Amino acid sequence: MMKNLSKDALITLEKELTARYAAFKAKGLKLDMTRGKPAGAQLDLANGMTTILPATDFKSADGTDARNYGGLDGLPEMKELMGAILGVPADAVIVGGNSSLQMMHDQIVRALLHPVPGATLAWGQQKIKFLCPAPGYDRHFGICQHHGIEMITIAMKDDGPDMDQVEKLLAADASIKGMWCVPKYANPTGATYSDAVVDRIAKLKAAPDFRVFWDNAYVVHDLTDTTDPLKDILAACAAAGYPDRVYIFGSTSKISFAGAGIAAMAASKANLADIKKHLGMQTIGPDKVNQLRHLRFFKDLAGVRAHMKKHAAIIKPKFDAVVAAFAKELGGKGIAEWTTPRGGYFVSLDLLDGCAAQVVKLADEAGVKLTNAGATFPYGKDPRDRNIRVAPTLPPLDQVETAMQVVALCVELASARKLLA
Amino acid sequence: MMKNLSKDALITLEKELTARYAAFKAKGLKLDMTRGKPAGAQLDLANGMTTILPATDFKSADGTDARNYGGLDGLPEMKELMGAILGVPADAVIVGGNSSLQMMHDQIVRALLHPVPGATLAWGQQKIKFLCPAPGYDRHFGICQHHGIEMITIAMKDDGPDMDQVEKLLAADASIKGMWCVPKYANPTGATYSDAVVDRIAKLKAAPDFRVFWDNAYVVHDLTDTTDPLKDILAACAAAGYPDRVYIFGSTSKISFAGAGIAAMAASKANLADIKKHLGMQTIGPDKVNQLRHLRFFKDLAGVRAHMKKHAAIIKPKFDAVVAAFAKELGGKGIAEWTTPRGGYFVSLDLLDGCAAQVVKLADEAGVKLTNAGATFPYGKDPRDRNIRVAPTLPPLDQVETAMQVVALCVELASARKLLA
Repeated sequence: MMKNLSKDALITLEKELTARYAAFKAKGLKLDMTRGKPAGAQLDLANGMTTILPATDFKSADGTDARNYGGLDGLPEMKELMGAILGVPADAVIVGGNSSLQMMHDQIVRALLHPVPGATLAWGQQKIKFLCPAPGYDRHFGICQHHGIEMITIAMKDDGPDMDQVEKLLAADASIKGMWCVPKYANPTGATYSDAVVDRIAKLKAAPDFRVFWDNAYVVHDLTDTTDPLKDILAACAAAGYPDRVYIFGSTSKISFAGAGIAAMAASKANLADIKKHLGMQTIGPDKVNQLRHLRFFKDLAGVRAHMKKHAAIIKPKFDAVVAAFAKELGGKGIAEWTTPRGGYFVSLDLLDGCAAQVVKLADEAGVKLTNAGATFPYGKDPRDRNIRVAPTLPPLDQVETAMQVVALCVELASARKLLA
Repeated sequence: MMKNLSKDALITLEKELTARYAAFKAKGLKLDMTRGKPAGAQLDLANGMTTILPATDFKSADGTDARNYGGLDGLPEMKELMGAILGVPADAVIVGGNSSLQMMHDQIVRALLHPVPGATLAWGQQKIKFLCPAPGYDRHFGICQHHGIEMITIAMKDDGPDMDQVEKLLAADASIKGMWCVPKYANPTGATYSDAVVDRIAKLKAAPDFRVFWDNAYVVHDLTDTTDPLKDILAACAAAGYPDRVYIFGSTSKISFAGAGIAAMAASKANLADIKKHLGMQTIGPDKVNQLRHLRFFKDLAGVRAHMKKHAAIIKPKFDAVVAAFAKELGGKGIAEWTTPRGGYFVSLDLLDGCAAQVVKLADEAGVKLTNAGATFPYGKDPRDRNIRVAPTLPPLDQVETAMQVVALCVELASARKLLA
């Protein structure tokens, strides 16, 4: 345990670490671990998708010409596939363009401008708040901040958000209108919500226009041969008497192509009718030719699952390298805790309080770009300045290994300096 | 001239027309002339686009992997191509997804929620109005109505909107914040704005957050070998001292695939910076693989123009058939006027006041679906109930011919009954 070292021993350690850090710095590294982007090798897995549509195949199962206008909520068979991926009935699905983030953003905008089912006022006519389990996804928080929605940080536990805190806050404050959730292999902690947590979310006493934004981004993104079970939130909300509580989101961005996949959302009948009323003013419909490409290539959920095993084969070694480096360099020192994800795109690293920004800075100066410290919290401010999101998928394995050596060293150095201060 | 007929002659004529109408009705036709959709043969022209990208070609000119995340405003070479199509510099362009309607809608939503450059209040914090040259595009008016923006109808002339009316209204009412324009081969009249009209729009005295929505949907959609000249509104606004006045929109929807094309918008530097600030919250970026497909297929503006000639070869005979049927059946009778478009997607038909809804109803009962009467006006209400939008591109030529016979007969019948009433 570093904190048990004497001051002299710490001073010696700090000098030694500083020397090792200088040696890394001298190497002039240029490594980027900032974003959860798939690697080229992962994208290559779906290259066949681009050539799979012959120039004569444009009809969907119901005879629709995918090239022409129309199809506001997607081809029926694409709803089937996205429903199967998201674990909801096909008729609960609206297929979108290439971005689930856009579907989330646009749903918030719709609710800001027009009352959601069950409400009389639009969110924009009130001062509203969102619950934000954190560490979480920076782009979720960015949407709230951009639109002036106040964010309340909720602690993330191994089985999901701290529901005691959520229940207490909601009971006391009717201006809380939303909650962000990444329920499976959460960004960045990798946690999957337990059945009990899903049920508690479904049963929350809340305002009639309270909505859960259920970003199931990693639903089929297993790193191992098993998949974490996740209870069906749509059914749970219906069973609890709050059928309109949840908007579910997902996409094939990290299945097919990150920038040219298919996004979708799912919701109750009343929510779907409401969304389509607005959507019909915004667009004539999403790209159905790209839907056909996906359908011809993946065929069904089994096809998707088989494809995801190929992804796992590429990225699992990178996750293993991150965890192995942390275990080797940081294990037993009492200065860091990290997750060992079973799926998703991130490793979450917690340091001694007050060390995260310093580690990101040190790593940056040594040529290793990390996601900004604080990015995983509302307003970009980690109250304990201790969480770092590690995104190992994009760089090649050897770069991940090198980068993690640098990061581990920076953690040690920052910790020693912190303990000396 | 039908109106010069004696009452007896009119009664005889009405009986004869009713008999002919009954004969058409007995045929059990099922023809759809409602929407400006390309025909299958037009879509076929771009089929090669779907197979043009080999499974090994994903790099844009600057080395970007089009499959991955990123590229908020599009690939540089796609900006070049859309800039060339829209007649603006590439660096004034933001490339979108598959829908220019969505870019227009989202721009209105952004302005409702956040002040545009030059403004202190968002539009949503005020009671605002839009000027709507009409007959015009129903989906433009739909966006305004949906978001509670009051619409003021402006008369459409052969050289664009009635600018005397526009100038007078703007001088008297600072709550007018927007104006819809389809400046070339306008929907549905086919008019192209004259240089004088473009200049008067650029020089309008208006609120600092007054914005012109310049939907240049038909910019390269000529039906003849020449193209109507259209003055550069972006340059005109800059020259007039109002660089931020205009948002320009366009797409390849009616060039490549209606549902799987590439949309774009163009604006001043200040507007672009503002838009990108918001867009970065909404999405990580549009589908760049589809951009590459378009680039490989069309190459440049010359490629687009050559392609559009093939479109014209398919649809010009349909427009000719519409105009020929009207000339033959309605010419000289003083009951209808129609446009002879040089480009675009519509023929605009003006009847005796109070006849449009009746003609649409009669045609529908005889198996010919037309766009709803009134659709081309704000709130779906044509104050004179006289305009019908004819969309001849989708059905095969023989169906267009048959449908126009029915429509012409319905016009005669409704007119005779009107004159008798």
